[in-house]
Amino acid sequence: MRFEINKDKLIHNLLAAQKALSTKTPNPALQGIKLDVLKEKIVMTTSNSDISIKIDIDDPSLSVEEPGAALIPGKYFIEIIRKLDGQTVAFSLAEENMLQIEADRSNITLNVLEIDDYPNLVFKEKEDFIKMNVRTLKTLIRQTAFATSTIENRPILTGVHLQIEGDEMTAVATDSYRLSKKTLKLEGSYDKMSVIIPGKSLEELMKILENNAADIEIHFDQSRVLFKYENTLFLSRLLEGNYPETSKLIPQEFPVRIKFNKEALSVAIERASLLSIRDGHNAIVKLALKSDDSVEISSNAPEIGRVREELYPVDEVTGSPINIAFSSRYLLDALKAFASSEITINFTGEIRPFVMTGEYDENMLQLILPVKTD
Amino acid sequence: MRFEINKDKLIHNLLAAQKALSTKTPNPALQGIKLDVLKEKIVMTTSNSDISIKIDIDDPSLSVEEPGAALIPGKYFIEIIRKLDGQTVAFSLAEENMLQIEADRSNITLNVLEIDDYPNLVFKEKEDFIKMNVRTLKTLIRQTAFATSTIENRPILTGVHLQIEGDEMTAVATDSYRLSKKTLKLEGSYDKMSVIIPGKSLEELMKILENNAADIEIHFDQSRVLFKYENTLFLSRLLEGNYPETSKLIPQEFPVRIKFNKEALSVAIERASLLSIRDGHNAIVKLALKSDDSVEISSNAPEIGRVREELYPVDEVTGSPINIAFSSRYLLDALKAFASSEITINFTGEIRPFVMTGEYDENMLQLILPVKTD
Repeated sequence: MRFEINKDKLIHNLLAAQKALSTKTPNPALQGIKLDVLKEKIVMTTSNSDISIKIDIDDPSLSVEEPGAALIPGKYFIEIIRKLDGQTVAFSLAEENMLQIEADRSNITLNVLEIDDYPNLVFKEKEDFIKMNVRTLKTLIRQTAFATSTIENRPILTGVHLQIEGDEMTAVATDSYRLSKKTLKLEGSYDKMSVIIPGKSLEELMKILENNAADIEIHFDQSRVLFKYENTLFLSRLLEGNYPETSKLIPQEFPVRIKFNKEALSVAIERASLLSIRDGHNAIVKLALKSDDSVEISSNAPEIGRVREELYPVDEVTGSPINIAFSSRYLLDALKAFASSEITINFTGEIRPFVMTGEYDENMLQLILPVKTD
Repeated sequence: MRFEINKDKLIHNLLAAQKALSTKTPNPALQGIKLDVLKEKIVMTTSNSDISIKIDIDDPSLSVEEPGAALIPGKYFIEIIRKLDGQTVAFSLAEENMLQIEADRSNITLNVLEIDDYPNLVFKEKEDFIKMNVRTLKTLIRQTAFATSTIENRPILTGVHLQIEGDEMTAVATDSYRLSKKTLKLEGSYDKMSVIIPGKSLEELMKILENNAADIEIHFDQSRVLFKYENTLFLSRLLEGNYPETSKLIPQEFPVRIKFNKEALSVAIERASLLSIRDGHNAIVKLALKSDDSVEISSNAPEIGRVREELYPVDEVTGSPINIAFSSRYLLDALKAFASSEITINFTGEIRPFVMTGEYDENMLQLILPVKTD
């Protein structure tokens, strides 16, 4: 094995591959980056228990003198490549288990791992896949994955539920205290399908997707989903089990509707959360619609102090006075999911879930369960 | 008590006062910021076991309606003020133990602390003080304080030793593995004096000093030092005890001298430290002067790999081949203290301390003890 390549190009791809690198694993082989050097390209593979990444690099700067393969300790390799000087870096397998790295006046030798211990990963593409713009997928993930549960006692809720029927795809995430839902139109029509993708996998995927106009392909099979994007294959396991029926949780009638400037609401909630009762990690904040249609955001931390914020709704308010209390973090998280600068909060009652929508966020809603206070 | 002030001006001063705010303290009063509202100015005071800060604010935006005083919970106060909207913020003591904060549409009430519990701090200026440019003092601190010990088993070494004699001030810091020394000329002549200032105090002081042309006054007494800078008084306790005699530790004869480009040496050491034997937190790196006057920086982490870096000295080398090993962190820390882009390492022998100097860093030296390797 012997090749050289532009250092920056290599680093760019290494940082993507790193997303699937295991740091804590009973299998030391998974701490490695598998490097397959072919005549015309090199292929990097990384894997942990949830996701696997395979990246083809056929950059013009690549010059392969002798094909080969090696399993390289990932953490050290990335640290070293990032610190190198010079534009070009040259690699060779010196002795059987020694990778030689040369750049400028540096000469680094790294003991490689046993390549035979690396699992056989199958990145199988299907004939029937879904294609969408990469920005559309990034938005879908950004607007839903944050609402998944991070607690493992109901593992199914750590995933995003994706349902496809005809030309419609719906994503739902909930940790049972809040729920995010987004529906979008697909180009083309598909068989009915329902899968649950780990929220963490989607968040790692989002980090390696650039904000460009490229397309991404989504290939499903029984237990896995494969995303194909430019020179990268991203494989995630699916969660097994039945996702709870969520459509009945979403109220349909909203006697009270208030439209806010998103930024003004956000800073008022942030200030109120500074002095508030804590319910675990949650800062509890109150919202009151007054009879004069002004809104008061308030909080009270006994012994410490209290906050009172006055807000004027953007449009005429629908409905009569209401008092509701909720976790400020849930509300702030939900606000960040909106592109709209004005958002509407739709209330059913003081102890019923409320639903947030935005004019420029079609087919997306954020639902939050209020908390009871005295 | 009732006043209003420009919010940004207040925040700027609060962030300076925060440096002496206690977070963990058996005395809850020290978690407070003492606010004295006079007719023409407000005075903020904070204190912890090492340092106390007193800041006068007589900004044109300040408008005092009613003088008074309050002890305000520091952490909450700073968080709240930073989050406020609007240009101006108004304060009043509503009921006896309630501070009312108003800005834009926010109305915040904060329970104040018992002001009678606050210690009586004396910020006493002396007639005979040292005056110097604030940049000179910042440089002195930056070049020495990092070499103080952070381990409490020899408390005296956690301080910087300052000696004044005539028109000369010398600062020395050492953790017994390395030593930094800087001498500078004072304007005026002073009685002989020797004090030890906690390194941490100097590092906090440095954070609130701006990089401007202003002067700073230094007032010493038996057990404390007071720095006076613009509208700020910064008081630190001194360390008691005798500082070890350090001048004999510094070799005077250097048979081997090598001049390096600082940046090239620094990146070579950084790379070598990635794959090296660890001695506690220290990564051990080797430097070898070869017979052809080239220098090799190398490291070796058994089982993982090794690094070999070739460096060409800037000028002709003085002396014969030498092999020396040292902690990479100590060398990198020392390099950062230099303004010069070229630095000289002066060696006495393979197991003797070596001394680093720089052409544009007059009267400053950095000394490092090598480690023994086989």
